[in-house]
Amino acid sequence: MYETIALVGATGAVGRIVLEQLVERKFPYKRLKLLASERSVGKEVRVGDETIKIELLEPNAFKHVDLVIASTPDEVSAEFAAWAVEAGAVVVDESAFWRMDDKVPLVVPEVNPDAVDHHSGIIASPNCSTTQMVVALAPLHKAARVKRVVVSTYQATSGAGIAGNEELKDSVRDSLSGKVHPAKVFQHPIAFNLIPQIGSRKYEGYTSEEMKMVYETRKIFGDDDIQICPTCVRVPVMIGHSESILVETERPLTAAEATELFRAADGVTVVDDLDAMQYPMPRDCDGKDDVFVGRIRKDISGSGGIAFWCVSDNLRKGAATNAVQIAELLVRKAAAVSS
Amino acid sequence: MYETIALVGATGAVGRIVLEQLVERKFPYKRLKLLASERSVGKEVRVGDETIKIELLEPNAFKHVDLVIASTPDEVSAEFAAWAVEAGAVVVDESAFWRMDDKVPLVVPEVNPDAVDHHSGIIASPNCSTTQMVVALAPLHKAARVKRVVVSTYQATSGAGIAGNEELKDSVRDSLSGKVHPAKVFQHPIAFNLIPQIGSRKYEGYTSEEMKMVYETRKIFGDDDIQICPTCVRVPVMIGHSESILVETERPLTAAEATELFRAADGVTVVDDLDAMQYPMPRDCDGKDDVFVGRIRKDISGSGGIAFWCVSDNLRKGAATNAVQIAELLVRKAAAVSS
Repeated sequence: MYETIALVGATGAVGRIVLEQLVERKFPYKRLKLLASERSVGKEVRVGDETIKIELLEPNAFKHVDLVIASTPDEVSAEFAAWAVEAGAVVVDESAFWRMDDKVPLVVPEVNPDAVDHHSGIIASPNCSTTQMVVALAPLHKAARVKRVVVSTYQATSGAGIAGNEELKDSVRDSLSGKVHPAKVFQHPIAFNLIPQIGSRKYEGYTSEEMKMVYETRKIFGDDDIQICPTCVRVPVMIGHSESILVETERPLTAAEATELFRAADGVTVVDDLDAMQYPMPRDCDGKDDVFVGRIRKDISGSGGIAFWCVSDNLRKGAATNAVQIAELLVRKAAAVSS
Repeated sequence: MYETIALVGATGAVGRIVLEQLVERKFPYKRLKLLASERSVGKEVRVGDETIKIELLEPNAFKHVDLVIASTPDEVSAEFAAWAVEAGAVVVDESAFWRMDDKVPLVVPEVNPDAVDHHSGIIASPNCSTTQMVVALAPLHKAARVKRVVVSTYQATSGAGIAGNEELKDSVRDSLSGKVHPAKVFQHPIAFNLIPQIGSRKYEGYTSEEMKMVYETRKIFGDDDIQICPTCVRVPVMIGHSESILVETERPLTAAEATELFRAADGVTVVDDLDAMQYPMPRDCDGKDDVFVGRIRKDISGSGGIAFWCVSDNLRKGAATNAVQIAELLVRKAAAVSS
């Protein structure tokens, strides 16, 4: 049913990992097209045992394509998605452009898999910082209903793509030899620094990145009563977003209950032994697909809530892995219908 | 009245800055003794126009000393403080050892200056992450009474002294050339990584650093009803601790009111213009004495609270500057009494 698939944005930080995952996870495609802008056309990319030439992303590129996975800037997605849908393909889109569209399901397979049933050609994958948070919150929400979340993020430079990591490396190298590397990708020099701004001002002094965490979480859980206070911060780490989360639930949970719920949850790995200095850290989560949770403890400020620390590879579960999992879900659902 | 002063720990990251500050701020001493462990004895240190030889920290070292400023490990402070008090000196101590002692005032001059009046020879300066937070919270507490604080920290490696910064630099250099630098000062490699543990396990899954923020804040404000949920994280930044703070007050404040209160507060500088990409960052606060506050906005998760971002040089206001300010306060109070 999804025999011919196309990847839009194959040369980006996320696109490269999508290709790896299609091979590693043995995604059942017959033909794979790689589409990109003019700059990359003609480049050859190794995918498993095949070498595939990148073709131009243009209105006729989606003929006979059944499924598209796309990791592109918002404005690219705004344009090409209609071409793909027109040609009869289903688009799994990583960009922010379609996420809050009422006709577009916003899907994290561990959390709301059935949302894929009601698409009109486009299915959106959430923002990286939202995805790992909802994967972690899902078991607590199911068991005790999440009422309120206070979250502070520590976000890696690869959230801004390959250029983000290059800027961090160059910036650190220059800083160590006493120079200041000019900021291009980020708003300010990132070497040995923190930037408490991701995105632009959006609402009541919150940034677009912060408001994504609010709106997308509510849409994924289908619960507009969930209250969220986010602070999003860029940190000099290459891969792996971290989040300090305080969650208040309708039914108070003990730390032991929360730990059990995390342990039993799909896509969550608990690493939590403070005496043994074991907790999730970006360097340990790089290249892994799960969402890692630790420092699980009761809120000692009296809310009856749970505080925890959550890390995930922002290029994997935060982007590539989630998109490939959505595609796998579509394949499984199609197989179930036809059998 | 405080003619002869002694500095214990002059060669450390904080001690060096205390010396700078004594000169810069024209501290009115007549004679300055530098005391340290055997390893540093005989070393000469330049202080303003003088060159001073480091003497041995031993029981008789405090003869004729009126005032001691000390930046040493807890176990050193536990021992020498009695020698100094016995000799008639007043000790302003940076270590954690005396902070929670009932007979020892814990002082941030902008917040609780009158606490110095009731000492028994020792006055403690708080933990770096506590000091900047209470300076920022003080004006809100005075105006609207702080009930609850949720804080996530982003703490610099210099919090672990000169060796902490050296380890970060070496670790980053090695990482850029594909090697892993062994962690000695920190629990894990710090290059391009985050470590969600500062100190050891203390209470209900919280670390000693986190519980310092709880206990010390309550003691400084003289208010045991303040509820605090802290998460302390080490980040690959050399100088400047940052904090993402959500504060709930008895009387709800608007963001505009909170901003006015911050602007009017001693020791606080507001840097807050998201559209112009202006907010406090470690690289801008390095070498400055104030506590910098920005990203001031209402909590959109319904508490009626205020969210903000707070950065300060952890070696200055977080340590050296606060100790020197306590010493200056003692001098002013003594002058007021004698005049």
